[in-house]
Amino acid sequence: MSEIILIQAEYILTWDDGYKIISDGEILIEDSLITYTGPRLKRSPESINRVLNTSDSLVMPGFINTHTHAAMTLFRSYADDMSLMDWLQKKIWPVEAKLQREDIYWGTMLAILEMLKGGTTCFADMYFFMDEVARACGESGIRASISQGLIGIENAKGLDGLKESSRLVENWHKKDDGRITVMLGPHAPYTCPPAYLQKVASKAAELGIPIHIHLSETRSEVEECRAAYGKTPIELMDEIGLLEQNVLAAHCVHLTGREIEIISEKKVAVAHNPGSNLKLGSGVAPLAELLKKGALVSLGTDGASSNNNLDMVEEMRLAALLQKGVSEDPTVVTAEDALTMATLNGAKSLFLDEEIGTLRKGSKADLIMFNLKKPHFYPLHNLISHLVYSAASSDVELVMVNGKFLMEKGKLLTIDEERILFEAQNRALRLVKDM
Amino acid sequence: MSEIILIQAEYILTWDDGYKIISDGEILIEDSLITYTGPRLKRSPESINRVLNTSDSLVMPGFINTHTHAAMTLFRSYADDMSLMDWLQKKIWPVEAKLQREDIYWGTMLAILEMLKGGTTCFADMYFFMDEVARACGESGIRASISQGLIGIENAKGLDGLKESSRLVENWHKKDDGRITVMLGPHAPYTCPPAYLQKVASKAAELGIPIHIHLSETRSEVEECRAAYGKTPIELMDEIGLLEQNVLAAHCVHLTGREIEIISEKKVAVAHNPGSNLKLGSGVAPLAELLKKGALVSLGTDGASSNNNLDMVEEMRLAALLQKGVSEDPTVVTAEDALTMATLNGAKSLFLDEEIGTLRKGSKADLIMFNLKKPHFYPLHNLISHLVYSAASSDVELVMVNGKFLMEKGKLLTIDEERILFEAQNRALRLVKDM
Repeated sequence: MSEIILIQAEYILTWDDGYKIISDGEILIEDSLITYTGPRLKRSPESINRVLNTSDSLVMPGFINTHTHAAMTLFRSYADDMSLMDWLQKKIWPVEAKLQREDIYWGTMLAILEMLKGGTTCFADMYFFMDEVARACGESGIRASISQGLIGIENAKGLDGLKESSRLVENWHKKDDGRITVMLGPHAPYTCPPAYLQKVASKAAELGIPIHIHLSETRSEVEECRAAYGKTPIELMDEIGLLEQNVLAAHCVHLTGREIEIISEKKVAVAHNPGSNLKLGSGVAPLAELLKKGALVSLGTDGASSNNNLDMVEEMRLAALLQKGVSEDPTVVTAEDALTMATLNGAKSLFLDEEIGTLRKGSKADLIMFNLKKPHFYPLHNLISHLVYSAASSDVELVMVNGKFLMEKGKLLTIDEERILFEAQNRALRLVKDM
Repeated sequence: MSEIILIQAEYILTWDDGYKIISDGEILIEDSLITYTGPRLKRSPESINRVLNTSDSLVMPGFINTHTHAAMTLFRSYADDMSLMDWLQKKIWPVEAKLQREDIYWGTMLAILEMLKGGTTCFADMYFFMDEVARACGESGIRASISQGLIGIENAKGLDGLKESSRLVENWHKKDDGRITVMLGPHAPYTCPPAYLQKVASKAAELGIPIHIHLSETRSEVEECRAAYGKTPIELMDEIGLLEQNVLAAHCVHLTGREIEIISEKKVAVAHNPGSNLKLGSGVAPLAELLKKGALVSLGTDGASSNNNLDMVEEMRLAALLQKGVSEDPTVVTAEDALTMATLNGAKSLFLDEEIGTLRKGSKADLIMFNLKKPHFYPLHNLISHLVYSAASSDVELVMVNGKFLMEKGKLLTIDEERILFEAQNRALRLVKDM
């Protein structure tokens, strides 16, 4: 027997070559799938297992966070206002070296807790002990695309990492009702030389999975790449054939005009991380230029140690405001652009847009509900402007992933919030002790 | 008989040439004044009217929003992603011309509702029908420094405005238990010629009150000022003697090195509005330079039509992140800098620092409480980093102004939230109808 749920809302955000808003609409969900989104219909109540009638509500697709390192929530506010190299070398790398398997599980659980509360229904993660990340996703009910971070400098370690990734694919790809998918995660060109990246590209082709990589985050890594290879990172990736695969490239802050063209032509999915790029002093990515050239850009929070939260509403707002301010042109990166990046473009960037990203018939039911009865949503001149320019992630009160309620009335249903806060706090304090 | 209240909290944020955090502390409040802040003491319960014992809590000074146009909440999300001149000429000015006295009252009430919920206990407002703003402040219990916007181009109107401001001072300055103060509000150099501004300066000296003005918000107004007077706006203000008065200057986005020096030397209080400056495409103010030169900088949201909310947590975060990113230096504008701008510097900028801005003995009891039992506050490595880089204004659950509780457990105590939302929505829709 199917489980059939009907959600009625004051507003529903749908997509038809642009956002449309249905007033007094409803969504019918059968098991994991949306089977109807539209105006309210007469239905026989006995055919429906549960009717959820909401008011002052906006139902929309869940946010998709396309670049993070979930377990790094353990280092939130541990090291701030520092230069990038001091931050990495004196604070982050030494404490990361102490991380145990169970720390990754609880750190990821803390991240999932925060993400679900803020309306994120899917995330792309790159870290290590990824079985633990998969376990946390499996238990919590969130959707995720996971990748083991690969370092190719020490050759043996790099090849071990590739084997590990193959095992990860075997164990977790499309598992947990299809909620978990796997990518290959070569860390960056400065930690993975060209020959190694070519092996990664071959392996991605062989396994039929995408690649998740950091590209051109800082000015200095671009300069080092030029010095070492006579090419910028995107040009180098193009030359060695990596961009023939499906690639999700995080950051892409320092780009030449030619690189923006390559990104657009080769359909590289860019995960834009405005909060982290600002906080670490990495710079301001040429988002407006990327969008103008038709590049596929989505939004990521990066890890909580450099953000310091996992708030997709904040990233939407920041993405739009920052480009307007820096270019001194308020017409670039509209509210609709920002919202598209946080939802549909996120789905495309994780190569999951046949399943998620909009609330159309046939999609997986990954949806969230905003409570609009808040001062900052009044008056209601424009709902999409409100979502991007005045909403707060704390306005999200309901979260469904894959047809299953994970949060109702702000309460998590699948995970134990108290336990997670307790474990994360204790483990984090133990990790930084004596450092 | 005095009303004596004791608030106990897990953490209390105090100031002693820098922020200090008292664990398991308490604050004693007698009528409007703080009489003790420190570790918990043995006290005889019969001497206290009410003891509020809180856990998972941080008590700190309320936020001070030093530049807004409160009633413009009515135009929140009415016009976005437009060029500045289109926005003003086609959308904002025509609808502002229709504003009635009662609209100002309800628009201001909506702003106060939003500000109190987000922990703002004091704001500086510049608009018109300021008696209505004062009435809203009086009724709600919030603290405010109000100024009538003065336009000096049509001479008669300008002089009427000055008379109106004198009347405002007489009726409202230091009224409502001292919660309301008045400034003179010449709009900007491009709407108030030098001769008029000199009259304003004389009037400010005569009345003994400060001046609130917009300065150097956009690149084009600076260019026009140079063309008309052969000087940049700050130089011009200095030359005509305006800066001999206490001046609160909003925006200050486009400044020369010489102007930054003048601002520091003449102790001009700068209200930095990062959200609005980005959203309108005005640019990025040289905040790091201003701080380096010792300038007094506070934070403002500007009106909700160009922000689009009145969220001081967001402005703190944006102020810090933006400067780091644009300068590609993560060490500039620290969390402590941002927090100081939002509290103590706000008090100094409104010339109220003998009364508010810190929780020291003898201060007016303007304080707020954050609920720390939120995923984004875990783990607790650094409370000040948390406040600036991961907090949300919705974490504020308690607000006290002048010793009076205005919000407890997220519920407003002095104003009728339902009525305000209803009136604001209806009035706003009526205003934009047929436009």
